[in-house]
Amino acid sequence: MQTVKVGLLGLGTVGGGTVDILTNTLPEIERRLGQKIEITIIAVRDLTRSRPVDTSGIILTDKPEEVVNHPDVDIVVELMGGTGLAKTLLETAIKNGKHIVTANKALIAEHGNALFSLAKEHNVIVNYEAAVAGGIPVIKAVREGLAANKIEWVAGIINGTGNYILTEMKKPGADFAKVLKVAQELGYAEADPTFDVEGIDAAHKLTILASIAFGIELQFNKVYTEGISKVTADDIRFAQQLGYEIKHLGVASRAENGYSLRVHPTLVPKDVLIANVNGVMNAVMAKGNHVGPTMYYGPGAGAGPTASSVVADIIDIIRWKNQPVADQVPALGFAADQLESAPVVSIDEIETCYYIRCFVKDHSGVLAKVTAIFAESNISMENVHQEPSVEKPDDATLVMITNSVLESKMNEALLSLAQLDAIDGDIMRIRLETLG
Amino acid sequence: MQTVKVGLLGLGTVGGGTVDILTNTLPEIERRLGQKIEITIIAVRDLTRSRPVDTSGIILTDKPEEVVNHPDVDIVVELMGGTGLAKTLLETAIKNGKHIVTANKALIAEHGNALFSLAKEHNVIVNYEAAVAGGIPVIKAVREGLAANKIEWVAGIINGTGNYILTEMKKPGADFAKVLKVAQELGYAEADPTFDVEGIDAAHKLTILASIAFGIELQFNKVYTEGISKVTADDIRFAQQLGYEIKHLGVASRAENGYSLRVHPTLVPKDVLIANVNGVMNAVMAKGNHVGPTMYYGPGAGAGPTASSVVADIIDIIRWKNQPVADQVPALGFAADQLESAPVVSIDEIETCYYIRCFVKDHSGVLAKVTAIFAESNISMENVHQEPSVEKPDDATLVMITNSVLESKMNEALLSLAQLDAIDGDIMRIRLETLG
Repeated sequence: MQTVKVGLLGLGTVGGGTVDILTNTLPEIERRLGQKIEITIIAVRDLTRSRPVDTSGIILTDKPEEVVNHPDVDIVVELMGGTGLAKTLLETAIKNGKHIVTANKALIAEHGNALFSLAKEHNVIVNYEAAVAGGIPVIKAVREGLAANKIEWVAGIINGTGNYILTEMKKPGADFAKVLKVAQELGYAEADPTFDVEGIDAAHKLTILASIAFGIELQFNKVYTEGISKVTADDIRFAQQLGYEIKHLGVASRAENGYSLRVHPTLVPKDVLIANVNGVMNAVMAKGNHVGPTMYYGPGAGAGPTASSVVADIIDIIRWKNQPVADQVPALGFAADQLESAPVVSIDEIETCYYIRCFVKDHSGVLAKVTAIFAESNISMENVHQEPSVEKPDDATLVMITNSVLESKMNEALLSLAQLDAIDGDIMRIRLETLG
Repeated sequence: MQTVKVGLLGLGTVGGGTVDILTNTLPEIERRLGQKIEITIIAVRDLTRSRPVDTSGIILTDKPEEVVNHPDVDIVVELMGGTGLAKTLLETAIKNGKHIVTANKALIAEHGNALFSLAKEHNVIVNYEAAVAGGIPVIKAVREGLAANKIEWVAGIINGTGNYILTEMKKPGADFAKVLKVAQELGYAEADPTFDVEGIDAAHKLTILASIAFGIELQFNKVYTEGISKVTADDIRFAQQLGYEIKHLGVASRAENGYSLRVHPTLVPKDVLIANVNGVMNAVMAKGNHVGPTMYYGPGAGAGPTASSVVADIIDIIRWKNQPVADQVPALGFAADQLESAPVVSIDEIETCYYIRCFVKDHSGVLAKVTAIFAESNISMENVHQEPSVEKPDDATLVMITNSVLESKMNEALLSLAQLDAIDGDIMRIRLETLG
């Protein structure tokens, strides 16, 4: 049996999980692989800290360049995060002919194009299964399993924190602020929750999913991103009454003149399976022109699930490493010279249905004025619901589901609506996807 | 660009779907692959029949040996079904050095061990993604995506016909016979539905899933198989009232002294996602020791979905074919000399919870007698529900959910129960899996 040597950058949660797998489940892995895997060296931040995993026999260093320059190391696994030092170290590792595994979604989404190109030049593999949806092998499923299809769209619950919050907000008396606090206490949300709650983490992952679905360059800065902090418990209740759940989705779809990449709260019909994905779990749907809709479900974070994908990537590299990378699955699933240049369109250019919720001063004739505004813009209604407001006792709450319309047209209508005297406060607009 | 040449055995539904993909979606596939794929020759049963797909430029023959012996063909795709001629033809193809793709679950489940061994000897690949769960890339997900895990169990809805019937039986007034008739009219069920309804098709697929999950030889003849024809609409209603859905599951799990492989109707808690998989759709759960529970969902049959997996297999072969098969993912995911010999245990040795439903003559003291029998066998109850029977107006229907117990103990208890005078007719027993 050959022994393949691995160097780790980082020994936090996922690093510890990776050491755990490559210690405790190694016999099962060697039954699959017929080769041995050894962790040779790990770069840590603080050499004096005690470790929850056994690192005996492994060199620990606080100089990460020792990992990427180590002559025995075949595969460098980057689990330190960030887009600065991590990027520099991986560039060095690639130039040294090391294969790369990373769980770093920000790094891939923001600098993947350059990294993949450098890796190709040096004939090494860069694998990143753990960067999207943690333990779910969704990169492999879309890039290889659905390779016979033209992918029409992907849509996913790709941030567990956000999904946990929206799930808990269904409970009586819950609201965003309260649930966020509980999530922080449970360790599901960071002290500064912006990254998860405002959709930036999801946008990183969606960037990657869109590229492997359509064969386009990574374009993180083109993703429209909207968080869940404005969604109220009432919105969730109204949506449920109308047959929907509200999920924070990343959606990448083909548009008339390019592609649409967006992260936003979304009404999804209850009878679509992904509407029933609750708590911290993740799920990604991918619709291919031949296969139809498929879905991949599992834990999107945590030591075990993320390390499961990291180690699967290591195993893949070991199987592939004697073959020229040009013959292998390309980094983004499509041959590098075949990536399409059609643009990512502005959010104004998408066409979708909408949930609209607003407070109206409850006097006669308001509904007529509101519906007249939508009628003028040729926006037809699927559903209109009005009930006394609990929050504002003098008002009524007006909830509408529209038929499909161009976002720019909807914006015009909402602008007119906001100018009506009868409208009290902000108007909530949530996009709706049938995912059919 | 190189051109890889493919020969097809069979031009039925899936064969037509394969030709469709390799005609209409070929440009997208070539963007991924950087190589060309050409269908050179197809063996059909009747040369005079008209075809729904364009076969111009392709040799059609009614002599299938011409496909497996064709000197230009690199990959033979078997879509004819059956375990006789298909097997002989594939053996010839393998001996001729052709790589193999097959959608034939019966062939793999019953003769896979010998075929894989022959293929290894001749250094060719045998891919069979389409044999389990149609368009869902579940073989790839379990064999590669979860390769870092010791798989604890797999459980799946792997027969769309059965799932359609159980889903439709939830509607008011529906019963098994009526729904089966509709399924036959819609083309979801065969004129002789035995293969689907009695679980044989699911047992073929479960055999394959168990082997790739645990690294054991294919052992179709050891699978315990029970169909859905005895499940009544009342059972489904009672289960729902108690918080469960009834699904026809294939389950493969680790048992104390080996493995448990079984296909049977199963109560699944409603809040487990797979309980919400309805209609003809398939879904497979796999739980790994590190990743936890994952699920793969999509269409389990039909021309497009099945051909999607067939063509993905072709693409994989094209990427891998210049590499010795010994370095590749082994046929069953584990190195051939590492397959475990622990036995598949008898159904008597499984331990699970049960749903029990029977009719009792409604006089006082019956419930005490029934519960005494279970108490004597140390079987405790999670739930007991009694209501007047609609079907048998003089009787009551008694529904019980037990805690976990060895099947052989449950059989003893049911035997005693059947001997009570108060029990009217057959006792229904359905196993329950929490899938946690």
